[in-house]
Amino acid sequence: MNTLSPDVSGQSGGSQQKTLRHVVLVKFKETSSKADIEKVEKAFAGLSKTISLIKTFEWGTNNSPENLNQGLTHCFLAGFSTEKDRDDYLVHPLHKEFVALAQPHLDKVTVIDYWVKP
Amino acid sequence: MNTLSPDVSGQSGGSQQKTLRHVVLVKFKETSSKADIEKVEKAFAGLSKTISLIKTFEWGTNNSPENLNQGLTHCFLAGFSTEKDRDDYLVHPLHKEFVALAQPHLDKVTVIDYWVKP
Repeated sequence: MNTLSPDVSGQSGGSQQKTLRHVVLVKFKETSSKADIEKVEKAFAGLSKTISLIKTFEWGTNNSPENLNQGLTHCFLAGFSTEKDRDDYLVHPLHKEFVALAQPHLDKVTVIDYWVKP
Repeated sequence: MNTLSPDVSGQSGGSQQKTLRHVVLVKFKETSSKADIEKVEKAFAGLSKTISLIKTFEWGTNNSPENLNQGLTHCFLAGFSTEKDRDDYLVHPLHKEFVALAQPHLDKVTVIDYWVKP
């Protein structure tokens, strides 16, 4: 079992970086089309390329057999180095633009951020 | 921006492993004490040491300023290599023992699993 970590392939030595994880779970509206949803998925993933404050990013769609997803179908997982970076991301113009694009399609959103503990 | 990945420090070359992420968000009962909660936190983290199916593990407590955590305060994040490993984990005796220990203290639980996409 390894501790999940930011991609360390670019690091030399064994230096440990602290990571602030940003977990966003989403349920889209019934009225949103597959194309609408794909537009939001791509836009969110795109932020990780245009906003350098985002240190790590991944996402995916629910396949849990436990039926505890409370209707939420998507998880987007970003990592930041500091709380300031996370705060700056939240008010970043490109993030605000993304929120404006996504908002009309969001039925439910759950967000938890946490400092990673092993 | 790096893609979040399992700890690759033990790998040679640049081989890419697929990861099935298992996200567990929890709200504890008002009646559960700090000691009760710490017992559950330690037991969950302990599983990642005793159940070898768990490839990556981390956890933490919410510090998001967005107030979108829906009362959920804890995130536990595990990674598996296959859906079979995730399924075997869910019915593993040590996992069942953990659920029995945690259940009396859980008010709300949200679980999403997903294959990691960059």
